[in-house]
Amino acid sequence: MSPDRPAHAYLVGLIGTGVTPSLTPPLHMAEAAALGIPYVYRPIDMSELELSPDDLGDILTWCERLGFDAVNVTHPCKQRVIEHLDRVDPTAAALGAVNTVLFTPEGRVGYNTDTTGFEQAFATGMPGVALGRVTQLGAGGAGSAVADALLRLGVRHLTIIDLDPMRAGELAAHLAERHAARVEVAGTEDLPAALAVSDGVVHCTPTGMAEHPGMPFAAELLRPDLWVADIVYRPLVTEFLSAARDAGCVTLDGGRMAVHQAVDAFELITGRRPDPQRMIRQFHDLVSGPEILA
Amino acid sequence: MSPDRPAHAYLVGLIGTGVTPSLTPPLHMAEAAALGIPYVYRPIDMSELELSPDDLGDILTWCERLGFDAVNVTHPCKQRVIEHLDRVDPTAAALGAVNTVLFTPEGRVGYNTDTTGFEQAFATGMPGVALGRVTQLGAGGAGSAVADALLRLGVRHLTIIDLDPMRAGELAAHLAERHAARVEVAGTEDLPAALAVSDGVVHCTPTGMAEHPGMPFAAELLRPDLWVADIVYRPLVTEFLSAARDAGCVTLDGGRMAVHQAVDAFELITGRRPDPQRMIRQFHDLVSGPEILA
Repeated sequence: MSPDRPAHAYLVGLIGTGVTPSLTPPLHMAEAAALGIPYVYRPIDMSELELSPDDLGDILTWCERLGFDAVNVTHPCKQRVIEHLDRVDPTAAALGAVNTVLFTPEGRVGYNTDTTGFEQAFATGMPGVALGRVTQLGAGGAGSAVADALLRLGVRHLTIIDLDPMRAGELAAHLAERHAARVEVAGTEDLPAALAVSDGVVHCTPTGMAEHPGMPFAAELLRPDLWVADIVYRPLVTEFLSAARDAGCVTLDGGRMAVHQAVDAFELITGRRPDPQRMIRQFHDLVSGPEILA
Repeated sequence: MSPDRPAHAYLVGLIGTGVTPSLTPPLHMAEAAALGIPYVYRPIDMSELELSPDDLGDILTWCERLGFDAVNVTHPCKQRVIEHLDRVDPTAAALGAVNTVLFTPEGRVGYNTDTTGFEQAFATGMPGVALGRVTQLGAGGAGSAVADALLRLGVRHLTIIDLDPMRAGELAAHLAERHAARVEVAGTEDLPAALAVSDGVVHCTPTGMAEHPGMPFAAELLRPDLWVADIVYRPLVTEFLSAARDAGCVTLDGGRMAVHQAVDAFELITGRRPDPQRMIRQFHDLVSGPEILA
């Protein structure tokens, strides 16, 4: 690039239902502004546009035609997007879920920065915690990405609990195939026993979000030597996380995963490594701003 | 807008055939960068995308869905775009041509900044020249926009010459309906006589562009008291404009119209008045850069 040519201006979208209030677009744009990179990031809200996952092929084709560099993809399209791609990163392929698509001259390439984002969030947010035995609540899309990251981080024994035991079982079988760790399924009734022998617990269900208030389990089951990670980030400090802090647990809030999935996507899109600390500060501003006003 | 909220990031497109090398996108983006406005402007090249004017409805629908604030529209869609709009500015409606579409909450609104751009270019680039009688060469789309601007500027007697006398006749009739000026058509054989009694001449054909080298008429017909405007801007100084300068004519290059159509479009899109002088300098840089390399 010659010095007097303007920098490439990036155009990015977020495809999914109900994505209009997502913090990911302003988070990317604020970081790009800090780096002096022209960057426009648009929510493409399938519910507002009255589009269904069946329209995903058209959405991607028009994103490409109209000059998008990349899109993030979220619920309910992370699985279905794969059939529309030319290449998929091996980890994303193993997870069967893609949340970042680059439109390149060689075609559409899919990645999963939910799983790399959780991995980074965990490694930087709770360094040095014990990884022997971990209990995970929730085996949905986010849970799959988190569980794979936990096993890459070195967890030796993972117990997965989901209200749908079939879903938990499928995830556990799939993870056990790929990782040299013990992965087992337990019922909700086994949660106290699983926690009693765990070093940490990761919460991957919607409980604690504004629309799903409450705790995933009773605060009495918390203890100071059990670390606690929550992936809910709105609010940033859930009732569960607050109870864990009160109980003296080392904790990880969901904001770090949300930020690090954006950090990794931003780097894939631009080839520039953003400043995670600056993005975390920006994220806290974005989360707290609307909540104060609301 | 609260002070700590980021400015709106603009997304704009240019719809037409062969628009990939257009200078309008970098011109808008450079001005936006100077004003500190996040702004991405993408060419939507119908020839490269293998789309036809029949696809214009789909293109506009998807621009809207994917979050474009506005599009510029150029050949071959300036007329056909009108059927896809909800409201059209009266001057654009009278011209039957739209080059700027805003996507607003109230629908799609069309404007023509070719005609307002030429008007501004003329008023600022050749202030005070005589406007009694003017000869115009070319009655196509650009010619229509220019002729209307000339009459709004106060030209009393306009002679239109085109290789297609029918086209020239239709334009003249249409202009005469709307303006209290004399508008007549002449054949190419009448050009010397028309120029002899004209204060100025405006050239609105492709002659002089790289693909159409040459002069619209012999340099012998030029004289120092005949002002000369050319709307060709690549090259910025055409053979014709160079001959006019050699003959001592006051001249206006096509760059000013190109810049002022962008100035006006930028203001319609953002509500912010850009700096025309800065955009003219930027335009000169853009025109000279690629030409030196080519």
